[in-house]
Amino acid sequence: MREELKEILLFMQEKTSGEILEDIDRFHPVDFLEMLSEMEDNPLGILEKLPNDYIALLIDYAEDDEKYGLLSLFSEKRKGKIIDEMSSDELVDLLGSIDEEQKEAIILNMADEDAEEVKELLGYDADSAGGIMATEFIAIKETMTISETINFLRTKAPDSETPYYIYVLDDNEVLKGVVALRDIIVSDPQTLISEIMNENTISIPIDMDQETVSNTFEKYGFMAMPVVDNFGIMLGIITADDVMEIIKDEYTEDMFRLAGLDETEKLSGSIPRAVKSRLPWLIVNLITAILAAATVSLFEGTIVRIVALATFMPIVAGMGGNAGTQTLTLVIRGIALGELTFENQKEILIKEAVIGVINGAFLGLTVAGLGYFWVQNAYFGLVIGVAMFLNLFVAAISGFFIPIMLKKIGIDPALASAVFVTTVTDVLGFFFFLGFATLMITHLI
Amino acid sequence: MREELKEILLFMQEKTSGEILEDIDRFHPVDFLEMLSEMEDNPLGILEKLPNDYIALLIDYAEDDEKYGLLSLFSEKRKGKIIDEMSSDELVDLLGSIDEEQKEAIILNMADEDAEEVKELLGYDADSAGGIMATEFIAIKETMTISETINFLRTKAPDSETPYYIYVLDDNEVLKGVVALRDIIVSDPQTLISEIMNENTISIPIDMDQETVSNTFEKYGFMAMPVVDNFGIMLGIITADDVMEIIKDEYTEDMFRLAGLDETEKLSGSIPRAVKSRLPWLIVNLITAILAAATVSLFEGTIVRIVALATFMPIVAGMGGNAGTQTLTLVIRGIALGELTFENQKEILIKEAVIGVINGAFLGLTVAGLGYFWVQNAYFGLVIGVAMFLNLFVAAISGFFIPIMLKKIGIDPALASAVFVTTVTDVLGFFFFLGFATLMITHLI
Repeated sequence: MREELKEILLFMQEKTSGEILEDIDRFHPVDFLEMLSEMEDNPLGILEKLPNDYIALLIDYAEDDEKYGLLSLFSEKRKGKIIDEMSSDELVDLLGSIDEEQKEAIILNMADEDAEEVKELLGYDADSAGGIMATEFIAIKETMTISETINFLRTKAPDSETPYYIYVLDDNEVLKGVVALRDIIVSDPQTLISEIMNENTISIPIDMDQETVSNTFEKYGFMAMPVVDNFGIMLGIITADDVMEIIKDEYTEDMFRLAGLDETEKLSGSIPRAVKSRLPWLIVNLITAILAAATVSLFEGTIVRIVALATFMPIVAGMGGNAGTQTLTLVIRGIALGELTFENQKEILIKEAVIGVINGAFLGLTVAGLGYFWVQNAYFGLVIGVAMFLNLFVAAISGFFIPIMLKKIGIDPALASAVFVTTVTDVLGFFFFLGFATLMITHLI
Repeated sequence: MREELKEILLFMQEKTSGEILEDIDRFHPVDFLEMLSEMEDNPLGILEKLPNDYIALLIDYAEDDEKYGLLSLFSEKRKGKIIDEMSSDELVDLLGSIDEEQKEAIILNMADEDAEEVKELLGYDADSAGGIMATEFIAIKETMTISETINFLRTKAPDSETPYYIYVLDDNEVLKGVVALRDIIVSDPQTLISEIMNENTISIPIDMDQETVSNTFEKYGFMAMPVVDNFGIMLGIITADDVMEIIKDEYTEDMFRLAGLDETEKLSGSIPRAVKSRLPWLIVNLITAILAAATVSLFEGTIVRIVALATFMPIVAGMGGNAGTQTLTLVIRGIALGELTFENQKEILIKEAVIGVINGAFLGLTVAGLGYFWVQNAYFGLVIGVAMFLNLFVAAISGFFIPIMLKKIGIDPALASAVFVTTVTDVLGFFFFLGFATLMITHLI
């Protein structure tokens, strides 16, 4: 199919608008967009011949950082017409990716009514329900019949974002119920909307955080959900495809932040951008590594006398870091999915502490045996065994508390938990091990 | 709303089926399920009075590990009736969570036709399109008119999974096109389906991996997609809510595996299960830590003479591990999202190597300065600076190649990359640092 499309594009510049439209109608806009990006020539020759609504569609499907570039290809006059074809949430996505000046210029190009709507949407936090929703939805009254509704859809619906649900509002625009399109099709034309509508609508508050929005969608499995304000007035809808986007972004963000990457870094991004994403994080880690090194330096006198301590140092610290990462990852996911609540917090803490004790006991005994055989000194085994046990317990406790505390003071736990937890396990791991060795030094030499 | 539902449930046992049905109809099944799980009494008293299709709905919305427990509450005879109300993919989800014996018993309870269908679905890999799809969809012929279609929907549709698209198949059941429900509503009753159907359907091959399925959904933003075999024969559909579930599961899996957790571990799971999830991974890490320790032990003679080496050891190894984790996380995400391809592989490798050189140079110079001032020996600075530079370069290269090689030999890169990369950066980090110090020992004392 790709080959076919490529061929079509090659000869497109010589075709008329009508011919082009017929050709591209056979492909999904996403595929068309992909081909376009692979073409080396200026794509304007082709794009110019496409209708405004198709360009608007392409901009909607384009990646955030490509949207404005696509629009910029056109003359000022045509820009306005393309913008007219875009829905409010598409426009907000476009405006979200550009700077203030460009934003102003685009808003000036809009019809007054649209400009008002977009400005209002831009006023919501981009990561809240208000920042994600579209304001185009189909609203009807409960006193309408099915046949009136169908007539209304024939004249009004083409522009709406929601092809599956129709919302029933009262005179004050308060959400009363929802009707599925299929119920409209299968009901008798004289039936009243009030008879078939579902009054138990589950709606999303306008200020709900996008992570909670995605959890709500997952929980109920809806294709679209209405967004309401405090008075129950319906303001917009969020559709499942927006939510898929959010889930993907949130998870990439968590994963990248845990690894010390900027969440906007891309595999195929530029080198300066990648360095800018990673170096600051490495510097933060360097500072914490220096803290760990300073701890070790306190005990240089002991290490000179029992050099096997240097050999075993990486084991104690490393294992603590690994166990701490396990706990903190679980806690971070629990926070993100809303599974860690104020009620079960204590229970989870006790559970993690017990696991720390069990794993610590097992690994402590193992490395105690290892230390004993390696160094041929039972006290050395005791020292490293106890240090390992203590460090795994500390790992469990800090892996639990650090993300929770970061969350409490408004820092994303995924962003900074790992560095704090490994600092704690490194510093305390070295401190337990080398400190205990110093206390026992007469038995170790 | 929760309080209200709780109250209703409390008095439910004294009510008739009709009253209960009226009551629960005001709540979403998911909310009903949540309340049920919070009740201390035996819930059977209430559940018994509910109709079979509602029980089937509850089982569908329940978590995988709760599905069978819910069904088990009922008598053998009623189980069969409840199963009759479930769609094929719901049944496959239920069967996927239980052991062979229970599975056999349930299949015996099914109508012959359903049993055949479910057995066929169970034959597909659970992580492929075939394992996710439902076989209930609405199929029409292109020669039908809109009004014929509407009649067909009135008699046939209620049981289907797809309330937004209707699929057009030819006499051999090959997929010819798709019609959106809204187009059916807004078209003239005498229009032929062939006039309004979209022939450029994008379909999912039956053996497509679920990760690719979710990428395809994200790319196109569809609410449902048809699944076809090699001949284009339509076998089922996948809906956006299934995909949300997949995205969530895949991401949790990646994140957990990166941190050394079993992907099935839950925050509120049991302690023995958590230990079983984490301890094996800690043991693997212990083995790699022993490898690193063995590397250090080779140089004990050097450390005794220059004990500051012990102090700086954690810095070199730790920074390599952090930089390696950055690269491997980016590569693992790139593999998962299909962004890392055979074509751009070389380009990405070069990019990562260059970043390794840049970050290595910066951090190498920094720790060289630090080493110089701390130990008051320029050669010491040189030794740690060079070791840091080399280790960050190694981190970039191994962070790139290890996930790719694991993927090639069929191991999930998220599962084992981190442990391999940190082993490489630990062992080589110590080796570079202590080995170079040994070579330069006359300048360091």
